[in-house]
Amino acid sequence: MAGFQELTPLDTALQRLRATITHRITETETVRLESSLGRILAEDVTARISVPEFDRSAVDGYAVIAEDTYGAAPQNPIVLKLVTTIEPGASPLELSTIRRGEAAKIMTGAPIPRGANAVVMAEHAKQTNNKVEITRQVAELQNVSRRGEDYAEGEIIVKRGTMIRPWHIAAIAEQNITTVKVLRKPTAALITTGTELAPLGSEKMPGKIIDTNRPMLKALLEEAGAEVVDLGNAPDSVEEIRERIRTGLSTSDLVIITGGTSLGESDLVPEAINTLGEPGVIVHGLRIRPAKPTGIGIINGKPIFMLSGFPVSSYIGFKILVKPCISLMTGAKEVPPPIVRGRLTRRVAKPAGIRAYVRVKVIRTGEAIMVEPLMLTGSGLLSTLTKGNAILEVPEMLEGYDEGEMVEVALTQPLEET
Amino acid sequence: MAGFQELTPLDTALQRLRATITHRITETETVRLESSLGRILAEDVTARISVPEFDRSAVDGYAVIAEDTYGAAPQNPIVLKLVTTIEPGASPLELSTIRRGEAAKIMTGAPIPRGANAVVMAEHAKQTNNKVEITRQVAELQNVSRRGEDYAEGEIIVKRGTMIRPWHIAAIAEQNITTVKVLRKPTAALITTGTELAPLGSEKMPGKIIDTNRPMLKALLEEAGAEVVDLGNAPDSVEEIRERIRTGLSTSDLVIITGGTSLGESDLVPEAINTLGEPGVIVHGLRIRPAKPTGIGIINGKPIFMLSGFPVSSYIGFKILVKPCISLMTGAKEVPPPIVRGRLTRRVAKPAGIRAYVRVKVIRTGEAIMVEPLMLTGSGLLSTLTKGNAILEVPEMLEGYDEGEMVEVALTQPLEET
Repeated sequence: MAGFQELTPLDTALQRLRATITHRITETETVRLESSLGRILAEDVTARISVPEFDRSAVDGYAVIAEDTYGAAPQNPIVLKLVTTIEPGASPLELSTIRRGEAAKIMTGAPIPRGANAVVMAEHAKQTNNKVEITRQVAELQNVSRRGEDYAEGEIIVKRGTMIRPWHIAAIAEQNITTVKVLRKPTAALITTGTELAPLGSEKMPGKIIDTNRPMLKALLEEAGAEVVDLGNAPDSVEEIRERIRTGLSTSDLVIITGGTSLGESDLVPEAINTLGEPGVIVHGLRIRPAKPTGIGIINGKPIFMLSGFPVSSYIGFKILVKPCISLMTGAKEVPPPIVRGRLTRRVAKPAGIRAYVRVKVIRTGEAIMVEPLMLTGSGLLSTLTKGNAILEVPEMLEGYDEGEMVEVALTQPLEET
Repeated sequence: MAGFQELTPLDTALQRLRATITHRITETETVRLESSLGRILAEDVTARISVPEFDRSAVDGYAVIAEDTYGAAPQNPIVLKLVTTIEPGASPLELSTIRRGEAAKIMTGAPIPRGANAVVMAEHAKQTNNKVEITRQVAELQNVSRRGEDYAEGEIIVKRGTMIRPWHIAAIAEQNITTVKVLRKPTAALITTGTELAPLGSEKMPGKIIDTNRPMLKALLEEAGAEVVDLGNAPDSVEEIRERIRTGLSTSDLVIITGGTSLGESDLVPEAINTLGEPGVIVHGLRIRPAKPTGIGIINGKPIFMLSGFPVSSYIGFKILVKPCISLMTGAKEVPPPIVRGRLTRRVAKPAGIRAYVRVKVIRTGEAIMVEPLMLTGSGLLSTLTKGNAILEVPEMLEGYDEGEMVEVALTQPLEET
């Protein structure tokens, strides 16, 4: 047993990861637009029709020829002849033409009739029988949504690589497009190691602990839009571990293996990876706290993430390595987490040269936001994640933060309010 | 046709909403822990066992009696007799006791043997046959995770009302608890109005437009954890609209109805709501832009949200009213959106007294973050949501922001990078 020979800074590890992973997700599938939320678009979606498809009214009011309204004011109303009423859904081709001195009552979204070039808002007009008094002048095109002003025919509406959100669904639906081509979901093979682990729901023997990493990582992968291939708990044998990893690499886009990565005698995972091919283990041991014993192996361009057996550390390892890797493989950009700024209630100290992920509790009392660090040690303590609601990342170059300092933290859960 | 009689400030509308909605979601269901991600916990989950269940080693190393190591240093190694090796999963009851002058080799997570009270890290020891040289002293309890230090027996692990995230699943799994009681999902009845609307995938006639609100609101409700009861497109008739709303109120926790809320002749929704009971429409017309014609009706303590027929406005209405209402009904707190700070590339102007939601594009170039406002008008333009990636909220008291001002915006999609 010995310490890690060399700890790798996180940025170096990420650079190596990006430079070595050649595997990308390129296979696509066609899904119903209404089932596409959260999927990654695999091709640009282009406007088949202009939106709006015709000039339409942006307000309820009166379609007019703008020149007819010049000079109109409450004290100087201009009277126009009301010739028709146009409802949304009317066919633009069947509308009668508006001539000088005429107006058409028009609803929001209804097509502008030929001849008319502006709409007077209902608030600035007074209708009496077949006449309408205009009390405010309008400029040409005022209150008119022009054909194609939202999307012009042929324009890209949503780019490939976009994670589909509700407004993308609306914009694609507007084109009457009912299916979209998306990337298939990334798949992750999940292997745990540790003879002390008992599966959730099993009858637990003394000394054994329930395997918490498996359900947590499944949930993290689900949140990341990935599907899980569960390869179970591997016995403490290089051969057995190697075979599970081999299966993982052949069935999945990436492999996650927990435990067995620290430098005890049970440290079999790096050996197993290195017998599988080139380049093998590219990072083992990170200059971070917690999750120091995290590692990365690469075989044939696919990654194997060695995460800690401790759930807090494996969560951190997932967040800093696995999630960015999934984005890399799909080409989708990540949305940053919500950040809040608050005042530290206690000093946070850590050695320079190490990046720390301190679990904190952010509490708002009126206008004041306080950030209370939970124990810096105790990477095994899940309670720092469940009782905390944010992570304070302390960069390598600092030795910590002083009590009372203002810091920015990334929320993992809602703010506490008192 | 006339303007809104009175526009309500958003905060007033929210106060009225909170004061008038008495309906809450209280029904629960029991789900498998591994299927509980994103659900709202309906009861506190309490620790059945302490975690750790026994004192255990936080590192790989040697379990010792701390006093035996006092004074140990690289130049002054202290030699202890190695009496056993303890692996994770060993039963704490079956371990032999450590006496003065003795040490046990121990792996991370393995139980501390009786007698021992600290662990020397492997890095600070050198093993030779059945002896180990200790080169750094340890204090009592150093590198030991105490029984119950994570969760004490009887302690609340996750509080009711919590939205279940991956680490909650881990903490509950640790207790070997396999199912949790969660609130049933909120249900929302969805009604659209507008004779111009053609359903997605239908053969579209001239002058008709595809109903984009329906698939967008379904996706927004899905993201908010709610289930949709689709009540279709209602014809322009107070009676028909009233019957659909009545059905919505009897089947769902809330009703959303789009269109028909501006003050044109097709303005039938408020009338329909007011014939259904008390208090009826409590807000109609908000001091916001876009989404001014948004309204709220309450019947028997359940809300009916009148959202605009324009998708951008109905999105804003959903975000500012429907989402907070769902949180109110479930008791779950909301996580704020990711905020970024950047410099405005152009002036943003709006009338004082109105709250504006300006769609913007946030672009990072190196260290600089620029915020480019998209057209302030054009509430009907979906492209402001699909091309933009953030919302700049301009409060009532301001008339806007100047070019070059630093502003905070809420991201809806990833940052653009150039």
